[in-house]
Amino acid sequence: MKVGIIGFGRIGKVHAESLIRYASGIEVKAIADPFISEESKLWAKANGVKEVYSDYEKILADKEIDIVLICCPTDQHFIVSKKAILSGKHVFCEKPVSHSVEEILEIKKLLEKYNVLYQVGFNRRFDKNFATLKEKVASGMIGDLHILKITSRDPAPPPISYVKVSGGMFLDMTIHDFDMVRFVSGEEVEEVFVFGGVMVDEEIGKAGDIDTAIISLKLKSGALAVIDNSREAAYGYDQRVEAFGSKGQIIAKNELENTTVIATKDGILSRTPKYFFLERYMQAYTEEIKQFVESIKSKSCTVCGVDDGLKPVLIGLAAKKSLKENRPVKIAEIEKEYGIKS
Amino acid sequence: MKVGIIGFGRIGKVHAESLIRYASGIEVKAIADPFISEESKLWAKANGVKEVYSDYEKILADKEIDIVLICCPTDQHFIVSKKAILSGKHVFCEKPVSHSVEEILEIKKLLEKYNVLYQVGFNRRFDKNFATLKEKVASGMIGDLHILKITSRDPAPPPISYVKVSGGMFLDMTIHDFDMVRFVSGEEVEEVFVFGGVMVDEEIGKAGDIDTAIISLKLKSGALAVIDNSREAAYGYDQRVEAFGSKGQIIAKNELENTTVIATKDGILSRTPKYFFLERYMQAYTEEIKQFVESIKSKSCTVCGVDDGLKPVLIGLAAKKSLKENRPVKIAEIEKEYGIKS
Amino acid sequence: MKVGIIGFGRIGKVHAESLIRYASGIEVKAIADPFISEESKLWAKANGVKEVYSDYEKILADKEIDIVLICCPTDQHFIVSKKAILSGKHVFCEKPVSHSVEEILEIKKLLEKYNVLYQVGFNRRFDKNFATLKEKVASGMIGDLHILKITSRDPAPPPISYVKVSGGMFLDMTIHDFDMVRFVSGEEVEEVFVFGGVMVDEEIGKAGDIDTAIISLKLKSGALAVIDNSREAAYGYDQRVEAFGSKGQIIAKNELENTTVIATKDGILSRTPKYFFLERYMQAYTEEIKQFVESIKSKSCTVCGVDDGLKPVLIGLAAKKSLKENRPVKIAEIEKEYGIKS
Amino acid sequence: MKVGIIGFGRIGKVHAESLIRYASGIEVKAIADPFISEESKLWAKANGVKEVYSDYEKILADKEIDIVLICCPTDQHFIVSKKAILSGKHVFCEKPVSHSVEEILEIKKLLEKYNVLYQVGFNRRFDKNFATLKEKVASGMIGDLHILKITSRDPAPPPISYVKVSGGMFLDMTIHDFDMVRFVSGEEVEEVFVFGGVMVDEEIGKAGDIDTAIISLKLKSGALAVIDNSREAAYGYDQRVEAFGSKGQIIAKNELENTTVIATKDGILSRTPKYFFLERYMQAYTEEIKQFVESIKSKSCTVCGVDDGLKPVLIGLAAKKSLKENRPVKIAEIEKEYGIKS
Repeated sequence: MKVGIIGFGRIGKVHAESLIRYASGIEVKAIADPFISEESKLWAKANGVKEVYSDYEKILADKEIDIVLICCPTDQHFIVSKKAILSGKHVFCEKPVSHSVEEILEIKKLLEKYNVLYQVGFNRRFDKNFATLKEKVASGMIGDLHILKITSRDPAPPPISYVKVSGGMFLDMTIHDFDMVRFVSGEEVEEVFVFGGVMVDEEIGKAGDIDTAIISLKLKSGALAVIDNSREAAYGYDQRVEAFGSKGQIIAKNELENTTVIATKDGILSRTPKYFFLERYMQAYTEEIKQFVESIKSKSCTVCGVDDGLKPVLIGLAAKKSLKENRPVKIAEIEKEYGIKS
Repeated sequence: MKVGIIGFGRIGKVHAESLIRYASGIEVKAIADPFISEESKLWAKANGVKEVYSDYEKILADKEIDIVLICCPTDQHFIVSKKAILSGKHVFCEKPVSHSVEEILEIKKLLEKYNVLYQVGFNRRFDKNFATLKEKVASGMIGDLHILKITSRDPAPPPISYVKVSGGMFLDMTIHDFDMVRFVSGEEVEEVFVFGGVMVDEEIGKAGDIDTAIISLKLKSGALAVIDNSREAAYGYDQRVEAFGSKGQIIAKNELENTTVIATKDGILSRTPKYFFLERYMQAYTEEIKQFVESIKSKSCTVCGVDDGLKPVLIGLAAKKSLKENRPVKIAEIEKEYGIKS
Repeated sequence: MKVGIIGFGRIGKVHAESLIRYASGIEVKAIADPFISEESKLWAKANGVKEVYSDYEKILADKEIDIVLICCPTDQHFIVSKKAILSGKHVFCEKPVSHSVEEILEIKKLLEKYNVLYQVGFNRRFDKNFATLKEKVASGMIGDLHILKITSRDPAPPPISYVKVSGGMFLDMTIHDFDMVRFVSGEEVEEVFVFGGVMVDEEIGKAGDIDTAIISLKLKSGALAVIDNSREAAYGYDQRVEAFGSKGQIIAKNELENTTVIATKDGILSRTPKYFFLERYMQAYTEEIKQFVESIKSKSCTVCGVDDGLKPVLIGLAAKKSLKENRPVKIAEIEKEYGIKS
Repeated sequence: MKVGIIGFGRIGKVHAESLIRYASGIEVKAIADPFISEESKLWAKANGVKEVYSDYEKILADKEIDIVLICCPTDQHFIVSKKAILSGKHVFCEKPVSHSVEEILEIKKLLEKYNVLYQVGFNRRFDKNFATLKEKVASGMIGDLHILKITSRDPAPPPISYVKVSGGMFLDMTIHDFDMVRFVSGEEVEEVFVFGGVMVDEEIGKAGDIDTAIISLKLKSGALAVIDNSREAAYGYDQRVEAFGSKGQIIAKNELENTTVIATKDGILSRTPKYFFLERYMQAYTEEIKQFVESIKSKSCTVCGVDDGLKPVLIGLAAKKSLKENRPVKIAEIEKEYGIKS
């Protein structure tokens, strides 16, 4: 099978390397990026990538290519996804599919007609720590789930220019955590309430966004969840999950830079969590591509489909409304707005 | 100085032992309990306690006694507090002063007239872990406080008979956590929102209470807090605090039964948290009595006064209303109901 | 039963408080110390101790007194033990009984004639962490014991004046670890080899002692043990035990000052181990006295008898010889010197 | 620069992948292995390796090839090293260079004549945990080094057939730990004493080897070190280092399988250490090859040269002698046997 990669920035290259290193019987035939770097061109050559385009339509037009990875900027995810499906390609699309519910619904409709697989890039599902946690919860080891707690804090806020086009913290950052709530619980979210604020950087507030939040969620079963977000944790990338149930609790802790521990008269000093998301989640990025390829080979449905791309956006919109109107908002209310039957 | 202890159950005896062991210049002269055990009588004799009464009025009538500890059932805290103040005694009263705001306000008014000290038994403030955490937060070590997270779960639910008279989970159990929010942040709570449910025991639901909750709080400064409660944690008494700020985070972790760690092919097994609240908080119980005695000796105000007894009750009532009406509730709304100027 | 305490420094008072607080049916009738402080006299009065002597013979002469605790300086342990046994008292003697093998053998012989109980104060056996570790090893949880590792480092070296009369590091400090090897393994030591040196303070070397050592031990079963000692750990009192066996490993870790953990950009900082031996081992001191009293009440033999006082001294002497002669030394060689049949 | 890899088993492939993935300007031109698998041939093709030989002499004869990696069985390391140097290739040789001191000395002599670089594969030096530990020790963060403790236990013993040709545990397994002592301390070992035994498997004893040992070492500065080895740790691959000095201690702990922690009534269960050496040390294997390539590019000497290959063998021989003769053995004694000036 041959693969084309659309968008060849940091994450496009990560996926390309995963394919080359871990996916047997897969050839990365082409990459397309209008702003591709010289270094990337060299990389492509050294790694046997035959074609380097600036126009991604050339990838879609290549009949030999079966699979497309969409790694371009978020605002193009929808249109490229649409065209790729129409070209009959299997699609891996970085998260989020779109900030627009209508667009995701359109992709969903297309997928019902076209016999192609579609996977959304919620990489954290493939992190060995969170995947183990989810597996243990699903196995009943902690009994019925009562409380799910997610701590999700970035090491540093994005540039204000990005904040302005990000769709807001809930759709840009918390969307991963909404996905994690669904992934770990195996349940849908029913209602959400938010307390939020601007504490990290006033400029974020001026851009119409917040940078700190406590998001409470009620799940269909009645189980509760809470996410706490910050755009800046001084000590690094803080990514923890706690699932508490009738028989016990399981926690996925941070991965630290290394295992050294220094004891002096001032205390016992461990290292900070891994700071950079690519370092923290490299194993997960590799694993998601391996499982995507596996799904295609076995013609089964993907681990994280278009519905998994839709639901977190709906929760994100409910969270936005909750913050604005200072009241709990049901997901059904958002679904109704878009004519979705829940 | 001479002390009388009213109510000589488990906690009355703990305080008596703290006084004898750690408070120099203090004599426990009398104890009063209508249901005192034979064992307690023997204990009193062996420890030089001169008088054992069934009627606590005899303690209040004893002119030699300067200090009274109120350790009887909660529903008598108010009336005994009132009479003790009127008798001119310094008072240490177990939490809560009362579930009735009016009664606490009455105590407050009395204390403005009578020149006696009054301390409420929020023992967790004196726990070395939480006290260190608070001290570090106050010192600015983590910068401005952004998010405060409290995990507070009991090892097992109380009997249903107790649940019925407990005032509800928020006034019985979460009240400690509301106090902890105020203690650690050094701030007042402005608004509260609750998602709760009955997950541990249906009987608790039938008794009109809940057993599991996520309580979000907004503080005056805009900082956020969240408490998660459960009436039953299979692994024991789970009592953790996380304070996250602009410069870092400080966590107070659980105290474990012992420090042993066993590694086998199945994993690396540490001990569970200390299970029993008296074991977990023994150091704190001792410390609160030491500091109370210190306050009296130095004629300074107490570390945890009647206002500290009032505020958590107001937050608890707001939480109750939030749960009932499924909306965020401002503390000011509760204060207005009771004619309190905030 | 009535108790007399001979030597009323720090540790004498600790034991007195344990007796008063935890041992029912026990009265501390008298204390004897030629250098007793005014504060201690006040304490005795407040706690109902009837007699305060400077001459300990008065305690031995008191027919009402059944039990004697020997807490005076080490060089008097032997003579007071001897006289106490001859007076028919049950004896608790702080460690070590003596640095002289002959003297301990004399005590041993006396105990065969006199029907009294004798316990040596190896308090660490009663520490909840080490006691749990020992219990797990004995239960077979880690299978056959292969390697036992003890880390034992003091927070600061003793004064040089003390070093000179201490009997040397092995008899003064490592003796606890030799006891721990026997206690955890349930076995006798067969052979010992030492590498040691002076690294902490040159004055210790000038006084003829060392301050740092690696002590390897071979046990009767063939299992191996190793102790590492330092007179000064900058981060506090380091007291850890690791038992490794055919089915796994069990570690007793240090107890930290408190459970707080601070995360900043510099790392994640936990607290240092408890610094002061009385704080670290308070629970163990209490427990050893409780069990001593229990042994007397039940007329069973003590948990840590005179032989347990003798064996570590023999190992200590073998260690001294090993260091001096730079060769492994068998305990049997030392026993032979003293005519002991092993 | 072009590379040839001699021996293409597990570790040869690991190094090949590191070169392809991380070393820019490097081409893996040829691999040679008389027993190469079909899978490896496919791998070679897919990764652009031009030549696959069964006879390694063809690699040595290829004038285009600058660098040779020796990954064949240990008993051929010497002869292949020798021929590769004579062919003017830079050499990376897996540990150990040889079990024969004479052979290593011969390689050393050759290297003095031939202008090629030679690196020995002591991969653990490149592990991020141990490398950080070493760096902190070298920086003086813990002051003067007093005690170095290494725990090194395999998850399972090798087959008896391997034990018989392994050179014995000290030259096969402990050799890594001897290297670690030198690496962390930055010092030479002066003297060694061993207690050892057969506890894991009697067959190992019958094959003339041991499986469990405590190895004490004295360093030139007087600092002490101790290694404890076992051929089988039930809970996995146990690889820890503790460096204790005048100002504190630094520990490199095990890397666990994942960060999940499960709390139930039975305790708090973390995962076991990574079990498989390739998983545990993958980062180190990559790093050592990167640094080797870097050394060649910068024409500097290698991080771990032939002397670093020699010294641990001398210590290993001293350890063997110590075990056999039950006495401490000086490294100088071994050096003298081989006419080496220390």
